[in-house]
Amino acid sequence: MTPSATTASYEIAVTDLLGLVAYGELTAFERLASDAGLAPTLDGKAQVAGMAAAEFGHFRKVHNRLTELGTEPTAAMQPFVAAVDAFHEHTKPSGWLESLVKAYIGDTLTADFYREAAHFLDADSRAVVEAVLEDMGHGTFVVEHVRAAIENDPKISGRLALWGRRIMGEALTQAQHIATQRPALAALLTGALTAPDADGGDDLARFGKMLTRLTEAHGARMASLGLSA
Amino acid sequence: MTPSATTASYEIAVTDLLGLVAYGELTAFERLASDAGLAPTLDGKAQVAGMAAAEFGHFRKVHNRLTELGTEPTAAMQPFVAAVDAFHEHTKPSGWLESLVKAYIGDTLTADFYREAAHFLDADSRAVVEAVLEDMGHGTFVVEHVRAAIENDPKISGRLALWGRRIMGEALTQAQHIATQRPALAALLTGALTAPDADGGDDLARFGKMLTRLTEAHGARMASLGLSA
Repeated sequence: MTPSATTASYEIAVTDLLGLVAYGELTAFERLASDAGLAPTLDGKAQVAGMAAAEFGHFRKVHNRLTELGTEPTAAMQPFVAAVDAFHEHTKPSGWLESLVKAYIGDTLTADFYREAAHFLDADSRAVVEAVLEDMGHGTFVVEHVRAAIENDPKISGRLALWGRRIMGEALTQAQHIATQRPALAALLTGALTAPDADGGDDLARFGKMLTRLTEAHGARMASLGLSA
Repeated sequence: MTPSATTASYEIAVTDLLGLVAYGELTAFERLASDAGLAPTLDGKAQVAGMAAAEFGHFRKVHNRLTELGTEPTAAMQPFVAAVDAFHEHTKPSGWLESLVKAYIGDTLTADFYREAAHFLDADSRAVVEAVLEDMGHGTFVVEHVRAAIENDPKISGRLALWGRRIMGEALTQAQHIATQRPALAALLTGALTAPDADGGDDLARFGKMLTRLTEAHGARMASLGLSA
């Protein structure tokens, strides 16, 4: 790749990444906020609502960065609407505990993904992703709540473990879709854009390795929650 | 009323008022956020999500004030759950435009109500309500959107006017329920708590006058939107 082709690919990839993050945060906001309606107590409702409001703050940060880059945020989000909506369509929680487990997996998996992605970004875009990362971790109450529910009724752990696997499986499926449809983004996330001699085949292999790392971290977290991943 | 009885009533009334506002903001957040899913465009979705996130910020301010006053926020909200939930149950928007009209009415009516209430509060609680008021008015885009939709298809104005009346009617119904169930709050909102010689009968009459003012302001706004109230 020539330097200018690399620059052009990098710009496409960063717009893609920020567009994906923006739409992911916006829909996370929407789903969490509507899941707050499943809360059996006012306290639980307020806490899930607080997580949702934090996601909206993240959306706003990324939205502003896209505007700064001279990109129309809705245009940047559009390519990811189908995959992200499909993820949520296929992972509709059927109750309060399922919504908490989904919120926890979504939050932690997203944080891992942001950490991986930040590594390959220019300083200004990285600062935005890191600001979002610093504001994450509103889900501590989720861990306590789910753990207490499992201790109280160990039978539910099998169902919740299955639910966790479904969410992770669906996330991987949609990630693969996105990677094949947005090659510049996949290349960015594997570091290939900083290595001009890399080819697409290697990119997808490296992308697969990143997914493996995310899956392993997810598995460790599920285990610590008392669920087999 | 003796001064100490007045003080005790005032404390009950302020806790009630803040509890009502907190639960109102929390549910407004939840409903708006879930209505964001009705948006036909990403832009509309982001704007309604922004209104919802603002409501959560208001909830947090009032929640913190309740904690400052040594009151458990969920206990303060509990007496208003039934009335506020009933309001939302009876005013479920059937589409995007209905949800926008509801958001606009909710926002403006609430602001009017906060202005009336702030008048009778001690300086610290008034500062909280005024901070919330200053952060309101995120709904400008709603007015433009609804007005454009009516200009584009004047036939819908009859249906939306009916919808606006239903929302206002339901708000008044629930306000009356609350006033009869929470006499200290009703007395506060009529200024009776600062006038020890006032009796309950007069309170309800003055409370009725406040509702009349709110209804008139609502009517003027609906008219300016192109809807007959």
